[in-house]
Amino acid sequence: MPTRIGRYTLLLNSCPSVVGFAALGSKKEAQGPLARCFDLINDDCTFGETTWEKAESRMQQQVVNKALEKSKLSSADIDYIFAGDLLNQCTGSAYGLRDLGIPFLGVYGACSTMAESLLMASIFVDAGCASRTAAVTSSHFCSAEKQFRYPLEYGGQRPPSAQWTVTGAGCAIVGQSDAPPYIRAVTAGRIEDYGIKDANNMGAAMAPAAASTIKQFLEDTGTNPDDYDLILTGDLGQIGSDLLYDLLGRENIDISGHHADCGLLIYDREKQDVHAGGSGCGCAGSVLCSYILSRVRDGEIKNMLFIATGALLSPTSVQQGQSIPGIAHLVHISHTK
Amino acid sequence: MPTRIGRYTLLLNSCPSVVGFAALGSKKEAQGPLARCFDLINDDCTFGETTWEKAESRMQQQVVNKALEKSKLSSADIDYIFAGDLLNQCTGSAYGLRDLGIPFLGVYGACSTMAESLLMASIFVDAGCASRTAAVTSSHFCSAEKQFRYPLEYGGQRPPSAQWTVTGAGCAIVGQSDAPPYIRAVTAGRIEDYGIKDANNMGAAMAPAAASTIKQFLEDTGTNPDDYDLILTGDLGQIGSDLLYDLLGRENIDISGHHADCGLLIYDREKQDVHAGGSGCGCAGSVLCSYILSRVRDGEIKNMLFIATGALLSPTSVQQGQSIPGIAHLVHISHTK
Repeated sequence: MPTRIGRYTLLLNSCPSVVGFAALGSKKEAQGPLARCFDLINDDCTFGETTWEKAESRMQQQVVNKALEKSKLSSADIDYIFAGDLLNQCTGSAYGLRDLGIPFLGVYGACSTMAESLLMASIFVDAGCASRTAAVTSSHFCSAEKQFRYPLEYGGQRPPSAQWTVTGAGCAIVGQSDAPPYIRAVTAGRIEDYGIKDANNMGAAMAPAAASTIKQFLEDTGTNPDDYDLILTGDLGQIGSDLLYDLLGRENIDISGHHADCGLLIYDREKQDVHAGGSGCGCAGSVLCSYILSRVRDGEIKNMLFIATGALLSPTSVQQGQSIPGIAHLVHISHTK
Repeated sequence: MPTRIGRYTLLLNSCPSVVGFAALGSKKEAQGPLARCFDLINDDCTFGETTWEKAESRMQQQVVNKALEKSKLSSADIDYIFAGDLLNQCTGSAYGLRDLGIPFLGVYGACSTMAESLLMASIFVDAGCASRTAAVTSSHFCSAEKQFRYPLEYGGQRPPSAQWTVTGAGCAIVGQSDAPPYIRAVTAGRIEDYGIKDANNMGAAMAPAAASTIKQFLEDTGTNPDDYDLILTGDLGQIGSDLLYDLLGRENIDISGHHADCGLLIYDREKQDVHAGGSGCGCAGSVLCSYILSRVRDGEIKNMLFIATGALLSPTSVQQGQSIPGIAHLVHISHTK
């Protein structure tokens, strides 16, 4: 059962486990350094479908089925599924998961969705609301470019601050088990808006939210960055990561020795044309649910914080001159209870 | 702390209260039969803003502030806010609530959002995750028409099965108190898709989900429709309500003597040009958080089920020939613990 600690953090006293997880990617992800960690790679980014949106739904379906298969469970074993994505009205999730017959709680946290859904899924298990829950998210480069920027055929130039939306999906199944990874605590973030208006600089828009949530968690738990062997942000990319160090530095918090960012892990920026790094719900989703959770399971990572960040804009809000609000949710994951 | 009962229902044993609630509407809602029940009516549907999207954000901000004011609370008293809306990337919520400084958990359930957010908000309080939570949603006729159908200036004709998106918002604040309304139980719905492809007939697309969730709750709790003085659906309208009776009738469940639909309550269909009734997240949100919760508080309604339904489509999914998945979440509300 959850216990509140500090102002905004919940300790999950039963330490729910991630009893299964899976990740998938496509061609660009297959060329990156984490390719071997993915459960499924489909070089054909249509995933056999006729539209990019249908492809993204197919990815969600496949990644959930893979996570179920790996954990020897069926959809009937899952009590609630928490899912969301970047598509308008979150259709990647609704269409992808509609045939599962699992109670469906849609979440929208933009690129923070993997953390938001995992936070909810873990609370539900810890509070006894469910035996097992699933958290899932996805993004697709082509559906995201079409919707947020320009049709691919337009061949628009991308500025150096832009990030590359990952074609990927991740699913984590949470339950009670005596095997790691364990979910120890969660901190839901508040919206932070520092007035960034450049939709090609999401990292900068999201960094203040990451700084706020990390600082809050450390305060609430009375811990410091050295207590964690990894502090993993979602998709701040290079610019956002640099800004995060700067913002936390002003609070005398130095995470640089322990920090990594999913958007900087998934691609090789020297060889792949991704500018400031990867992004999208599927970036944090696929990196967490492959390379990272495997390492926590195997004890290579003992104690980590996962902080996925989201930019809560829409193309319309940007066109109307609004700044970009950011949000970050945190999940504390460890190898031991 | 929640206890699971049956397959999909959670009893909230502490019976959290709705300690504050507020609703707002605009000109068309002011001409309807519930006008006097609303806390705020703004005849100017711009709400003083320059775009429809900004107007919707302003509505969310105003309705939360009104609910706080009525319950003599400040935003610092709220531990989590659950919010969502119909706008792409849920910007009505993100921009409307960004200045509150409350941990923000975005949900997407289309027009089921009032039930989904209230379900989550109630679970968090019952499970001890929070002292107080808020659930909020909104819709705006003009932003919805622009985004889902045609720009208003186009003057498109609406078929008789179409519903009128409510310009309205509702907010419920959940906490522990010895005053009704009490939240007794919740049932999260599964996605149902009966193959409806007509985006002007949402009621028919959502009715199967409502039928499924109501049937599940009655089974899980061993109760029948006569145990409730009101079974209130969100925005099925006339066509969806008729279909709901038919679908439940096949299961030998007759709710017709106890059923009402927010979409049929909010407007006078004889005098107002709304075709099959009202719709939108703000329909169920504003009706619940005004007329209905007041009557539960005052004991005029003793025991009720609130089932808000959502159509999980996007304009893109419909244009791509996909059918419309529906979802319905249920909240059991009563005057006594």
